[in-house]
Amino acid sequence: MILAKVVGTVVSTVKNDGISGASYLLIEKCNQSGDRKGDFIVALDLVGAGNNEMVIVAEGSSARETSQTVNKPLDALIVGIIDLIDENDKIVYRK
Amino acid sequence: MILAKVVGTVVSTVKNDGISGASYLLIEKCNQSGDRKGDFIVALDLVGAGNNEMVIVAEGSSARETSQTVNKPLDALIVGIIDLIDENDKIVYRK
Amino acid sequence: MILAKVVGTVVSTVKNDGISGASYLLIEKCNQSGDRKGDFIVALDLVGAGNNEMVIVAEGSSARETSQTVNKPLDALIVGIIDLIDENDKIVYRK
Amino acid sequence: MILAKVVGTVVSTVKNDGISGASYLLIEKCNQSGDRKGDFIVALDLVGAGNNEMVIVAEGSSARETSQTVNKPLDALIVGIIDLIDENDKIVYRK
Amino acid sequence: MILAKVVGTVVSTVKNDGISGASYLLIEKCNQSGDRKGDFIVALDLVGAGNNEMVIVAEGSSARETSQTVNKPLDALIVGIIDLIDENDKIVYRK
Repeated sequence: MILAKVVGTVVSTVKNDGISGASYLLIEKCNQSGDRKGDFIVALDLVGAGNNEMVIVAEGSSARETSQTVNKPLDALIVGIIDLIDENDKIVYRK
Repeated sequence: MILAKVVGTVVSTVKNDGISGASYLLIEKCNQSGDRKGDFIVALDLVGAGNNEMVIVAEGSSARETSQTVNKPLDALIVGIIDLIDENDKIVYRK
Repeated sequence: MILAKVVGTVVSTVKNDGISGASYLLIEKCNQSGDRKGDFIVALDLVGAGNNEMVIVAEGSSARETSQTVNKPLDALIVGIIDLIDENDKIVYRK
Repeated sequence: MILAKVVGTVVSTVKNDGISGASYLLIEKCNQSGDRKGDFIVALDLVGAGNNEMVIVAEGSSARETSQTVNKPLDALIVGIIDLIDENDKIVYRK
Repeated sequence: MILAKVVGTVVSTVKNDGISGASYLLIEKCNQSGDRKGDFIVALDLVGAGNNEMVIVAEGSSARETSQTVNKPLDALIVGIIDLIDENDKIVYRK
């Protein structure tokens, strides 16, 4: 899974994804410390991630492995909000 | 899902995709503000996206998760036309 | 799907793909005008694409969604020969 | 599968992956000698990989092909701890 | 499928892939002439590829489409040993 930060929302009214009651968030890939990389994707959020939080994003067919996303045409899902990352026994990110 | 702009159409008469009544569009990846990146792919359109509109594109097996694309050999599908993107509470793209 | 040009053939006699009667072609990724990018992959051809033709290539599991490729270990399939591409209402490629 | 080194852990309490009793590790892609590349991803660990060990990581739908990960929204799994790599009959990495 | 050269072996005794009787090879991506690119991955070999041979590698879920690899957590499989590649009617690689 990739690391990314929530940076905004993406609004689409004309769509054929069969998804309702969940938001498309604009996320930006980041490194292990939360530094942003300038690479943006759109991911569905089912965990209530807030702006500027670092999240774990599952891509590809794995994004469909929840009851709300099964059989939906989406390829990026926020699966967790990150509390803390340690690298070589040093905390490099804390929510 | 990735962000892209519709920039043209791709016509193919000799094909074995089993798809009819839908268009292959030429799309160019873009950033969250709609700035084009010079990276082009071909995506099937089922939502009637028009030229220069920014769209959400599902890639991989997720592109087959609609009634029209199930079991078809395609790996990129336009799933929504974007109305608006906000980044850090500032609108960075509006249709 | 990606855009690519057919540039050659790949011959393999020791293989375990279970495929017969179809060719592996050497293809080179290209842009929307047909300019080659120096990035080569191997794709199965079922449409009879000829040398120097621009083609649409489906990648990943989508390459297995035809009767000849179902359940085969291949991840790139030529799904169509491109006749014409227009970009912003200007023809940028013609077969 | 890719080569990577275990460099830390990723803690997430708000998540919807349905996984318990396994850790998300921070891993950094590396080359065949173990030199790190500065590219970080998050992978589930089921083999008990320790810090600084080089591992084999399966990505995409393949990460779900174990009894613990089947039908879970994850796309990266540590499938083995590497003992030794030889390149051109010379040992380039040893645990 | 990608082009790669076999450059070594990867030994792992602690693994949970459920695979026995087949080797993990260290492979390096190459261009159509066999020039190496410095990008290494690990692939399962079922065809008996030898050191320095150029091979065709299937990635992703396609790697599981053989009787030995079905339902295994692997994402790269050597599907053929290349005998010859021609590019624009000129032989650019011969085994």
